[in-house]
Amino acid sequence: MRAASGVWMDESPKVAPEWSVRHWYNSDHPIALSGLRGRVVVLGAFQVLCPQSVAFGVPQIRRIHETFEPKDVAVIGLHATFEHHAAITRAVIEAFIQEYRLKFPVAIDSPGESGPIPLTMERYRMRGTPSLVLIDRDGVIRKHAFGPIDDLRIGAEVGALAAEPPSVALSRSSVA
Amino acid sequence: MRAASGVWMDESPKVAPEWSVRHWYNSDHPIALSGLRGRVVVLGAFQVLCPQSVAFGVPQIRRIHETFEPKDVAVIGLHATFEHHAAITRAVIEAFIQEYRLKFPVAIDSPGESGPIPLTMERYRMRGTPSLVLIDRDGVIRKHAFGPIDDLRIGAEVGALAAEPPSVALSRSSVA
Amino acid sequence: MRAASGVWMDESPKVAPEWSVRHWYNSDHPIALSGLRGRVVVLGAFQVLCPQSVAFGVPQIRRIHETFEPKDVAVIGLHATFEHHAAITRAVIEAFIQEYRLKFPVAIDSPGESGPIPLTMERYRMRGTPSLVLIDRDGVIRKHAFGPIDDLRIGAEVGALAAEPPSVALSRSSVA
Amino acid sequence: MRAASGVWMDESPKVAPEWSVRHWYNSDHPIALSGLRGRVVVLGAFQVLCPQSVAFGVPQIRRIHETFEPKDVAVIGLHATFEHHAAITRAVIEAFIQEYRLKFPVAIDSPGESGPIPLTMERYRMRGTPSLVLIDRDGVIRKHAFGPIDDLRIGAEVGALAAEPPSVALSRSSVA
Repeated sequence: MRAASGVWMDESPKVAPEWSVRHWYNSDHPIALSGLRGRVVVLGAFQVLCPQSVAFGVPQIRRIHETFEPKDVAVIGLHATFEHHAAITRAVIEAFIQEYRLKFPVAIDSPGESGPIPLTMERYRMRGTPSLVLIDRDGVIRKHAFGPIDDLRIGAEVGALAAEPPSVALSRSSVA
Repeated sequence: MRAASGVWMDESPKVAPEWSVRHWYNSDHPIALSGLRGRVVVLGAFQVLCPQSVAFGVPQIRRIHETFEPKDVAVIGLHATFEHHAAITRAVIEAFIQEYRLKFPVAIDSPGESGPIPLTMERYRMRGTPSLVLIDRDGVIRKHAFGPIDDLRIGAEVGALAAEPPSVALSRSSVA
Repeated sequence: MRAASGVWMDESPKVAPEWSVRHWYNSDHPIALSGLRGRVVVLGAFQVLCPQSVAFGVPQIRRIHETFEPKDVAVIGLHATFEHHAAITRAVIEAFIQEYRLKFPVAIDSPGESGPIPLTMERYRMRGTPSLVLIDRDGVIRKHAFGPIDDLRIGAEVGALAAEPPSVALSRSSVA
Repeated sequence: MRAASGVWMDESPKVAPEWSVRHWYNSDHPIALSGLRGRVVVLGAFQVLCPQSVAFGVPQIRRIHETFEPKDVAVIGLHATFEHHAAITRAVIEAFIQEYRLKFPVAIDSPGESGPIPLTMERYRMRGTPSLVLIDRDGVIRKHAFGPIDDLRIGAEVGALAAEPPSVALSRSSVA
């Protein structure tokens, strides 16, 4: 269930669903997607025992986090356990975050109710890990990638989204 | 005269000077910077016998060329010979372009009038090769880098510039 | 406790101690070091939550396994858990071996009796992970490295050991 | 005429032919292959305008030169110009050696008498660049590779050859 090479998935723009999180690391409070309205959100899904996530996905999320201003771009890691459930305990994820020195908030996806796929992963219809979802300042999904994507291309997409002003209408509604 | 690691150079924005070109490759006609008004321009300077240019600069220019839409971003290579003048004949540059399969236009910078630094390199005050200059849709220099810069950062900068509309005033003056 | 860059550690040659193994993967029977006499042994120690092991150590062990003839060189992985004991369950190691498609035998080091360092790691005085121990056909330690070492250098060392005939005297004594 | 990926070429062992050299760099005197008898010789052929040579071949020759003891292994670069003859002047090769900081002796192959292939390249039946020829202490060709080969494999081969003693008979005949 992992991509050999990254692909952008064609998607009609749609409002990003709220995530469902069991536990947060690197944040002393729960973070709601709705609370990030006005900023671009980069949601990077990974698994600690997925070679592509470890070799490409996680380092890329870290680079995105280091490259953009937090006021413009919020980077959120999502640990979406859909395999090896018995192995991936909370202690494993904690050790991973410590050893790989992740500084961005990492959400542990809530377990699925009727199968191995966790809730947020299902809501976003992710096809595996690593996955990357780009959400604009108005909370709309603009890109969705599965597998490693070139840095240049990711940079271009996030840079373009960060250059967009939030739409007046949506900004208003998000305030109300 | 080459950077060990890439740096963005702080610069006040200013109008990009016209380049001075001795010969063009991959273009059947001379390209004027003024003729690219309305598009973002990525000007990538390199030298065929500069290890950093060959290993990082040229492949990055090629990736930029492959990533952005030509209608938004014009990628121009500039061979700025400031060393090894006797060695770098036109035949060397031609063989290099062929062997490295460069598809973007490559300008051969005009020789300097009173020293080893060629004219365009001097006008842009480049510090060596590889150098990268980002020019916005209005013809204003927005970034200037010396040495290899992360793809993610370049992507972000070019993506942001491509997302900007040309300013009305400058667009008008460029038409006039 | 991990090396930023690999180093060969100076060591007087000495007879390699027998390892102490809790469990074997990729082998349907326990493997004794003494049973490998006559072949060069490459013992590669790693941990699943050690970034250097995952990025460099394990792929290098795999390449060594693919490069040399089994009749000449026996490649043995050693999972030496000296950190994150609670996290690194057998299920984690199993999932890792499966996901990273390791084909060489992997030994789980026996837990230490009075501290976090496991038994084989202690006997070999390894300084951390990844570590690499080269044992000649006579069972003598010839090299001991901590941290990633260049492939060329490892290849040269193993190639030279594989080219040595086993010494008559030691061969005899190992039979006796 | 270049390999996409490296291959060892099957060859019956045979005595390495003497090379024919137009000019030497990094040596103040001509070096005869016969004068290297007793040492392993690594002959690395490259071209300055060949992307595979520049990216893989030349850096690998340099690493081999840095890894082995000169008393055991002699590393010789061979610039085998078989393309772009007009472009590759001596000034180009000199600038390349300086810019890439090559420290090992580099021989410029003698031009072919009736075609584009230079003499040494023809005598060794090299198929292109980069090529690597491993010659044992007795002057016998033991391996011949075209295209980039893994460092581990090269290290193993050279390490094994360096571990072999020169044969008595051949040593004698080389003295006579």
